[in-house]
Amino acid sequence: MKRIAMLTSGGDAPGMNAAIRAIVLASHYSGIQPLGYQHGFNGLLEQEYRYLGTEDVYNIIQRGGTILKSARCQPFTTPEGARLAASNLNQAKVDGLIIIGGDGSFHGAEHLSNYWNGKIVGLPGTIDNDINGTDATIGYYTAIDTALESIDKVRDTADAFERIFLIEVMGRHAGFIGLSAAVCSGAEQVLLPELYPDAPPELDDLAEHIQRAQKIRGKCSYIMVMSENLWPGGATDLANQLKARTGIECRPVILGHVQRGGSPVSLDRMLASKLGAYAVEALLAGKTGIMIGERNQQLVEVPFQQSWNKPKALDPYLVKIQRQVFDLVKNENNTN
Amino acid sequence: MKRIAMLTSGGDAPGMNAAIRAIVLASHYSGIQPLGYQHGFNGLLEQEYRYLGTEDVYNIIQRGGTILKSARCQPFTTPEGARLAASNLNQAKVDGLIIIGGDGSFHGAEHLSNYWNGKIVGLPGTIDNDINGTDATIGYYTAIDTALESIDKVRDTADAFERIFLIEVMGRHAGFIGLSAAVCSGAEQVLLPELYPDAPPELDDLAEHIQRAQKIRGKCSYIMVMSENLWPGGATDLANQLKARTGIECRPVILGHVQRGGSPVSLDRMLASKLGAYAVEALLAGKTGIMIGERNQQLVEVPFQQSWNKPKALDPYLVKIQRQVFDLVKNENNTN
Amino acid sequence: MKRIAMLTSGGDAPGMNAAIRAIVLASHYSGIQPLGYQHGFNGLLEQEYRYLGTEDVYNIIQRGGTILKSARCQPFTTPEGARLAASNLNQAKVDGLIIIGGDGSFHGAEHLSNYWNGKIVGLPGTIDNDINGTDATIGYYTAIDTALESIDKVRDTADAFERIFLIEVMGRHAGFIGLSAAVCSGAEQVLLPELYPDAPPELDDLAEHIQRAQKIRGKCSYIMVMSENLWPGGATDLANQLKARTGIECRPVILGHVQRGGSPVSLDRMLASKLGAYAVEALLAGKTGIMIGERNQQLVEVPFQQSWNKPKALDPYLVKIQRQVFDLVKNENNTN
Amino acid sequence: MKRIAMLTSGGDAPGMNAAIRAIVLASHYSGIQPLGYQHGFNGLLEQEYRYLGTEDVYNIIQRGGTILKSARCQPFTTPEGARLAASNLNQAKVDGLIIIGGDGSFHGAEHLSNYWNGKIVGLPGTIDNDINGTDATIGYYTAIDTALESIDKVRDTADAFERIFLIEVMGRHAGFIGLSAAVCSGAEQVLLPELYPDAPPELDDLAEHIQRAQKIRGKCSYIMVMSENLWPGGATDLANQLKARTGIECRPVILGHVQRGGSPVSLDRMLASKLGAYAVEALLAGKTGIMIGERNQQLVEVPFQQSWNKPKALDPYLVKIQRQVFDLVKNENNTN
Repeated sequence: MKRIAMLTSGGDAPGMNAAIRAIVLASHYSGIQPLGYQHGFNGLLEQEYRYLGTEDVYNIIQRGGTILKSARCQPFTTPEGARLAASNLNQAKVDGLIIIGGDGSFHGAEHLSNYWNGKIVGLPGTIDNDINGTDATIGYYTAIDTALESIDKVRDTADAFERIFLIEVMGRHAGFIGLSAAVCSGAEQVLLPELYPDAPPELDDLAEHIQRAQKIRGKCSYIMVMSENLWPGGATDLANQLKARTGIECRPVILGHVQRGGSPVSLDRMLASKLGAYAVEALLAGKTGIMIGERNQQLVEVPFQQSWNKPKALDPYLVKIQRQVFDLVKNENNTN
Repeated sequence: MKRIAMLTSGGDAPGMNAAIRAIVLASHYSGIQPLGYQHGFNGLLEQEYRYLGTEDVYNIIQRGGTILKSARCQPFTTPEGARLAASNLNQAKVDGLIIIGGDGSFHGAEHLSNYWNGKIVGLPGTIDNDINGTDATIGYYTAIDTALESIDKVRDTADAFERIFLIEVMGRHAGFIGLSAAVCSGAEQVLLPELYPDAPPELDDLAEHIQRAQKIRGKCSYIMVMSENLWPGGATDLANQLKARTGIECRPVILGHVQRGGSPVSLDRMLASKLGAYAVEALLAGKTGIMIGERNQQLVEVPFQQSWNKPKALDPYLVKIQRQVFDLVKNENNTN
Repeated sequence: MKRIAMLTSGGDAPGMNAAIRAIVLASHYSGIQPLGYQHGFNGLLEQEYRYLGTEDVYNIIQRGGTILKSARCQPFTTPEGARLAASNLNQAKVDGLIIIGGDGSFHGAEHLSNYWNGKIVGLPGTIDNDINGTDATIGYYTAIDTALESIDKVRDTADAFERIFLIEVMGRHAGFIGLSAAVCSGAEQVLLPELYPDAPPELDDLAEHIQRAQKIRGKCSYIMVMSENLWPGGATDLANQLKARTGIECRPVILGHVQRGGSPVSLDRMLASKLGAYAVEALLAGKTGIMIGERNQQLVEVPFQQSWNKPKALDPYLVKIQRQVFDLVKNENNTN
Repeated sequence: MKRIAMLTSGGDAPGMNAAIRAIVLASHYSGIQPLGYQHGFNGLLEQEYRYLGTEDVYNIIQRGGTILKSARCQPFTTPEGARLAASNLNQAKVDGLIIIGGDGSFHGAEHLSNYWNGKIVGLPGTIDNDINGTDATIGYYTAIDTALESIDKVRDTADAFERIFLIEVMGRHAGFIGLSAAVCSGAEQVLLPELYPDAPPELDDLAEHIQRAQKIRGKCSYIMVMSENLWPGGATDLANQLKARTGIECRPVILGHVQRGGSPVSLDRMLASKLGAYAVEALLAGKTGIMIGERNQQLVEVPFQQSWNKPKALDPYLVKIQRQVFDLVKNENNTN
């Protein structure tokens, strides 16, 4: 193995640059030449790459986004696309490829492996934490702190006005950000796809809990955290419906793309640094078709298919204590 | 003057607690008893007040929100409401009242002064900075830093994906937050009520600038900052329309109530500390019917009516340099 | 079990309030009365306690420090002290006691258990992360982010001036903060007690690496992270000696007590919330003499003695990649 | 005027990059070529410069440090140095030069003007805010927020332990950071060079105030903010002496170089953006020998000598209210 390449694909996540840096440093440490492809899989098709020296990754560990850019790439998903990519990789004399991204990116990696003989290793990079085989994904830790900082600020206003706020966080299919943000912000209610797999919750139940909180505590603030896409029409629509039902003012706050950016927190930098270095080791050891993850503080190699073949489970104890906060309001005696 | 009272009213703003603390400390320093009314003008009607000792304001200078709570209060706006408030203030032996809030709150103060003989002083507390007679309002500095931190994060994603983002910030009638956020984030475009007083901008013009940026720079990121309410349907609608017109993906981000909260930055704490202390001095000197502001680094006394009688002007040099950034894109030669 | 008490002891750590809140909420959920003792073990001697309702822990999850205060307590370490504490606990009808603190606090807990028949459970609360049986301690995650934010800022100046900075972080006997901060900040060198168990490193070796960096990279910035107490005289003395040896300006930065404070990051809030709730469950199940920890994402019960009977090991892979960064500088060819 | 150059000199300050960006954009807007010299005045001697396109300053507005690097430069202060610099500037066909730095840098500018016929304009860039003719300097606003965030964290520990902390902030000759940090953090005591111009305060007085605070409030936290260099031996020495005198534990915290770095807050970005754009306008208008500042919200031109010819005064009202906080402790009755 003389030359490895890397790319970032799918939604960007804080810590991707730390992973790129780790790969580049480990490559130089092992006497291998690292290349960086731009714009995700598009770069493979367009031969957009450059050699990465240690100075290219200096002072990027703390930066959000990705210096290699990311993008969606429809043409790559065809056989012709993958064949072109394989041919281009061979032409660039690349022996191994590291793909940083989410499960869509790993599907792309698997697709490419049918047309290319080089080794392919993946790193889980997504704020959603919805990838099996690793306790956390690169970017997840930063995203929950970003969401939390925003909710802490909303809580100031909620308290000052004794108001109801509905905070919509990212996580279309997975409630990791939502559950963490709810527990950490002391939210009274949380709506996650895992808790409502078949249908959204009943409006009446949501309304009743808010009314119950106001009955036992007097007028008070109330935070509901909800994953995007859970309620048809989102937080804005739910706020309107709750107001219509209860007569109580409810305000929506949609955190949106702010959650994808920012300087990575220390845990994301550490995870990215470890996974990146280990990915180079794995390539050198001839491994392919795997994602590098961390489970129970051990670096692990996970076949791509295991990373997406079942939904990743939420921490049941976090679900339990969030439920207790909810029930405490529900069952509290009117003694305050 | 033996006893003064204070209340916070209207939208909450970071630094209100710093102002409360300053009033309480200055009162004790001058041998006066300070009272705090809860829930804005409602507290006057409901006789919800408590004595505030120095220990009550210990360690609140850094907290967002307001320990006195805030609220809207319709009944107070009637003659009966004001008469009841006046009677309650007299019953509580209050000689002077300090009202922290925006122009709505100052209208309330003026209204009360028709029914009550005590002295009334206002402090400008709103993130919108839309009050005349003071260079800044308490909360404004924190709000622009909060907006800016969010936009800095969005810029990470914008750059990684070379995407267009439309950031909607607070400021229904005033573009202070929007203009500052745009200049400080290096935004390519800004839409403010002052710049479009009669009608929203033409969709074609907005689309053309985005297309121009992509033509001369290649695919690239692009940030547009817009004040809420400026475009019918808001950032979400404008993003959809721009996409339909240009074929380029545009993403809306609505910062919302996050901008009202958070620990106040140093300038808001300083402003609040100075205005609060001076308000007590002004009451002791027998002043009434005025707002305390700071103009050109001098504390000033502003009759309430002057605070709302004309729109406050944006900094013309900031408008100019933001316009130059816009024009640079527009006029740049295709040389990159 | 009808009444449980809690106290915080030893150095304060961000997340202690989140733990207090979790204990109080879980107690109320289980129909138990929670009491809070003030000032660590002193509160047991002085009978300084109060009942904690759900409203007492409202909005404290995000606050640094501890609402119960902490303190050292010499008198408690005597048999008389422990007997008095036991008697006071019995008088207050306390059945179970939860102690949040570090290994000194757990020694105190063990000591008390010789004189008191109630159940005692500990929660690991210290920024140093030097407690066995749990992957992390409450406060550790926040401390490394705080250290990192400061080092990120120093790096700005280091880069602008191409200067050498020595950053002294907390961790007298354990290098967890130091190692994490070094890896995450991309530091060129790290000095930890685990790496130099017998004697501090040789001045010559430290100087040589700095000179090597400057030789191969040209004048450049250089960050060395060091645990407190590792070098006799600390960072200031080492900076002076390095300058004397190499002629290169070296600046010390001592992060100090800033690392103990601040609003807890999400992981500390989550850990504290889980451990606090579980501690109440453990008491209800009749457990005693144990610390609650989290290992490999499972909540675990650890006999007090196991928490301190051997030094906790650093993550060997983190040590390895930090060493590679060091070696890269050492071995780099002069090619830039 | 066809070509202007810029450099950053002296201590770095957050916002210098924003100023560089503004100069570059304004130059391109006006059809002028901008050059950036590296390493302060050294770059003039070494002919280290490069052309700066708009893409070179993209996405730097939010970065701390300076992309042009800074440095001290002894050789430049000689006549030979200045002659060489002048010759090099002429050779590079530079018509105007913008120097971003503190008063030392402006002395350098004045020195150069004796040997060079081009136009020279200065921008005040220093965290110390010790430059006359401008209300604030670029970097000052960020520095006080950085100091404040650290003190807020220390306050958590101070409160939890009811301890005394001595916080040493930057500002060798000017108390701007110290005064702002003290007022904004609610510090009980502040030591600034302006308040003790002839000799440091008496140890007895400092000790007495601490003892008084503990007498009237019971054991309590206490924050003293002090400028560096004010007390011989610094915060560490003063803490030791206070402990020896009073028997009360006092902890020093030295904020140090952390205060120079970090992403600039919005006010520093705005100030830098305005001053940078205006500096180009001033050069185009043929101005020379001036610093651009902002006074009372107006951009102003200040002859270099006026920028350093007298000490800049602290805000007297801030001094007054900080004094009141001090006196409140001193005079409070023992009623708590």
